[in-house]
Amino acid sequence: MAAEPVWSVDPRTGRQRAQVATEATAREVDEAVRAAHRTRGALADRAVRAAFLRAAADRLEADRDRLVETADAESALGPPRLTGELARTCYQLRAFADVVDEGAFLDVVIDHPDDSAVPPVPDLRRYKVPLGVVAVYSASNFPFAFSVAGGDTASALAAGCPVVVKAHPDHPELSERVAGAVRRAAADHGVPEGVLGLVHGFAAGVELVEHPLVAAAGFTGSVRGGRALFDAAAARPAPIPFHGELGSLNPVVVTEEAARERGEAIGAGLAGSMTLGAGQFCVKPGLVLVPSGPAGDGLVDALADAVGAAAPGVLLDLRMRDAFLAGAAERAALPDVESPLAPGAGEERAVRAGFLTVPAKRLTGEGAHDLLLEECFGPVTVVARYTGEDEVTAVLSRLPGNLTATAHLSEGEAAGEGGGAALLAALTPLAGRVVVDGWPTGVAVAPAQHHGGPYPATTSTSTSVGGTAIERWMRPVAYQNAPEALLPPELRDDNPLGLPRRYDGRLER
Amino acid sequence: MAAEPVWSVDPRTGRQRAQVATEATAREVDEAVRAAHRTRGALADRAVRAAFLRAAADRLEADRDRLVETADAESALGPPRLTGELARTCYQLRAFADVVDEGAFLDVVIDHPDDSAVPPVPDLRRYKVPLGVVAVYSASNFPFAFSVAGGDTASALAAGCPVVVKAHPDHPELSERVAGAVRRAAADHGVPEGVLGLVHGFAAGVELVEHPLVAAAGFTGSVRGGRALFDAAAARPAPIPFHGELGSLNPVVVTEEAARERGEAIGAGLAGSMTLGAGQFCVKPGLVLVPSGPAGDGLVDALADAVGAAAPGVLLDLRMRDAFLAGAAERAALPDVESPLAPGAGEERAVRAGFLTVPAKRLTGEGAHDLLLEECFGPVTVVARYTGEDEVTAVLSRLPGNLTATAHLSEGEAAGEGGGAALLAALTPLAGRVVVDGWPTGVAVAPAQHHGGPYPATTSTSTSVGGTAIERWMRPVAYQNAPEALLPPELRDDNPLGLPRRYDGRLER
Repeated sequence: MAAEPVWSVDPRTGRQRAQVATEATAREVDEAVRAAHRTRGALADRAVRAAFLRAAADRLEADRDRLVETADAESALGPPRLTGELARTCYQLRAFADVVDEGAFLDVVIDHPDDSAVPPVPDLRRYKVPLGVVAVYSASNFPFAFSVAGGDTASALAAGCPVVVKAHPDHPELSERVAGAVRRAAADHGVPEGVLGLVHGFAAGVELVEHPLVAAAGFTGSVRGGRALFDAAAARPAPIPFHGELGSLNPVVVTEEAARERGEAIGAGLAGSMTLGAGQFCVKPGLVLVPSGPAGDGLVDALADAVGAAAPGVLLDLRMRDAFLAGAAERAALPDVESPLAPGAGEERAVRAGFLTVPAKRLTGEGAHDLLLEECFGPVTVVARYTGEDEVTAVLSRLPGNLTATAHLSEGEAAGEGGGAALLAALTPLAGRVVVDGWPTGVAVAPAQHHGGPYPATTSTSTSVGGTAIERWMRPVAYQNAPEALLPPELRDDNPLGLPRRYDGRLER
Repeated sequence: MAAEPVWSVDPRTGRQRAQVATEATAREVDEAVRAAHRTRGALADRAVRAAFLRAAADRLEADRDRLVETADAESALGPPRLTGELARTCYQLRAFADVVDEGAFLDVVIDHPDDSAVPPVPDLRRYKVPLGVVAVYSASNFPFAFSVAGGDTASALAAGCPVVVKAHPDHPELSERVAGAVRRAAADHGVPEGVLGLVHGFAAGVELVEHPLVAAAGFTGSVRGGRALFDAAAARPAPIPFHGELGSLNPVVVTEEAARERGEAIGAGLAGSMTLGAGQFCVKPGLVLVPSGPAGDGLVDALADAVGAAAPGVLLDLRMRDAFLAGAAERAALPDVESPLAPGAGEERAVRAGFLTVPAKRLTGEGAHDLLLEECFGPVTVVARYTGEDEVTAVLSRLPGNLTATAHLSEGEAAGEGGGAALLAALTPLAGRVVVDGWPTGVAVAPAQHHGGPYPATTSTSTSVGGTAIERWMRPVAYQNAPEALLPPELRDDNPLGLPRRYDGRLER
């Protein structure tokens, strides 16, 4: 049987650009995993890992023009956005190198013997070790930042875990180029190139999550695909952690007072956020609770003006375009749903952004429009008009988990007068990040970031962005009564590496 | 249909002591979960949680005599052991109160806006919030420490999560008594008694893990039961974290030099560890690699002497006794397996401890005795005699995950001469705790403890003992640009609660 070809496709035309690879056979997946597994020793040295991550950033930056050109040809996301995304990706690689250097992620805890404890405590020293080979499933919508050298890969390598990436079919050529740059960076620092495997094809993705030497997986994509892989990870003879980011509605609540104070500005801001990247962000605001009445009307009018002025955009692939158009039309056809600005097909392969409105009470009770509580990928949002706080509460109680939840408050509410605190408290159970007077799009790479949330936002309690993303790929191990001569330097009393740690119960930093 | 009775049974006689409850119906499980869910607000105050945990310890201690008597009547573990286990349980409740007071477990991270980051960082403040209602599945073999008021419950309450416990059928009366004490402690501090639900029955356990308001589960028990519940947790419409401790062989390697130096002492120590609590510990050493030749022979002789002198013991229930006798007999009947001291039935319902020996090479290659690599619950261990380091390496490579792995080294090896470091490095991937020159039984309650390990030791990377066990029941949430007036005090710049935190990247104690 001939190997299945993998084509690079231009989404603006649908034309096949070039065959860039073949789909990996089961044997090729096995070889990639074994090759990655053999590089664990080379990754054991933290200094090597940090240098390798920084070299990968340097290599990607050195090839920026060609990488952005390739990414644009395969994604239609446009050079400005892609240039920024590549910069973010390099920043992220270097940020994880800093995390490796600092060493707090090792979570060193040292207890000396204590006979007053019940039962008595022996000499115990704990830190975290890498899990092993990590499978990374690339996203369609972030060809750099959530793909071959994105946050999952960077955090896994930082943890000391080799990676095998399942490339996203929307950008196979870019995936090969990025993998090549990372491998050259590895070789620069004495790490075998097998440290970053790359496989193409749906079947290869399934083989990967089932491979006995794969110890954990990271995923960014759809609920359907992510859940299938999560299920496969859980069904293994030895289940593995599966950190998947699947889907999110990202609700926004605009209070009556906020709409009155600055409804037009909020409407314009919403238009910018929901049309950014042609609405192809996992944190796109997909449901916006806006008060009925004149203040809310002003917000909706401003939204219509700004969305109407947005240029049509080409989606990442034809399948997504079809799903977007069908999903928007299905939602628009529901009873009592109106389309002040209908999303739809644009010229050539482009789509036009739009939004729908619905009375908030149609989202609760008998015959509720549950479809409007599901993510619709692309430049569309649903504005639900409410007539009182009870309706807001009722809608929020029906929402599944989200990456983000946003509140727009009045000046007084932000200052603590009225229901601002109560609204934040109501949004907190729904999401991993609560945004005030801003928009969820734009996910900063920072220590305090949390990009995750209750299912289906993520399949675990972890984040895929920010320093703590490294925790996903490690497990603790404790040494009991190990003699000083045999302890790893991280666990020695004299702390030769200067690591932050908990020492006899006290935090040392 | 009449409710199924739940009987307290005396394992020493098999006699039903009393009916203490009925099995919970689906409706009763639902009521318990909803009642627990309603207490989240009362648990939100950390000071209340700490006081409640300490009050629970006080209440249990105040009722010690009756609790120990009940526990002994239902478990046959004996008053000395049970008195110690109750003390450990109270120590643990207070240790988690200390964890709550310190507040490091909240993982506070604060980032101020930084325009030099790529992309720019807004004001971001992250901490951890409780997941919600936790389901706890009690263990048979620790009626106090891993049951109703054990580590899972203590850590969940410490995290701010209400708990519904599925009682173990081996100690239903004790479960009711302990739950009563904890509920009274809750009431002492204004927390509704529903904060600790208790249900009996197999079906109730399944209902519990599938309940939409249950947000996570902790389990200590068998591979079979634990895996079934893990699978149910993963198959839910919204999967939940399942922290299960399922099974562990706890391998021990005695080096040639160590056997030569102190083989007899090691043999006697092994006897003590494997017969402790009638071998009913999850950390019982179940496979011991001992060199062939005279030094190893001396170890085995000492083991035989000490095990032969051990008093017969009554196991926790009749089913376990049957499984132990059948499992030991099945192992003893394998080709090339010898029984220097055969485990078997004792008088009345007791069992006699024993051990088997086998050439290590029968554990690898074609026709290997895989059964000997599976845990056999009860007072039996397998001594595998090896003829070189290669055989040790080959056996270790075949082992599944373990809670512990132990090395007995010579003085020279412990000082760094010879293969001590290499052996610890080989044991580290196999286990969550690596013990040197000691025994795995005895799991200290300490910050550096890690009681967990690769599957099937645990179904996650977490620990069920020690301060970090609290992490299992929390998830991070980040606030973006939240005004000072609306921030929880934990996230305010002026740090009114004096919490350890990461502030603009720097660790602050």
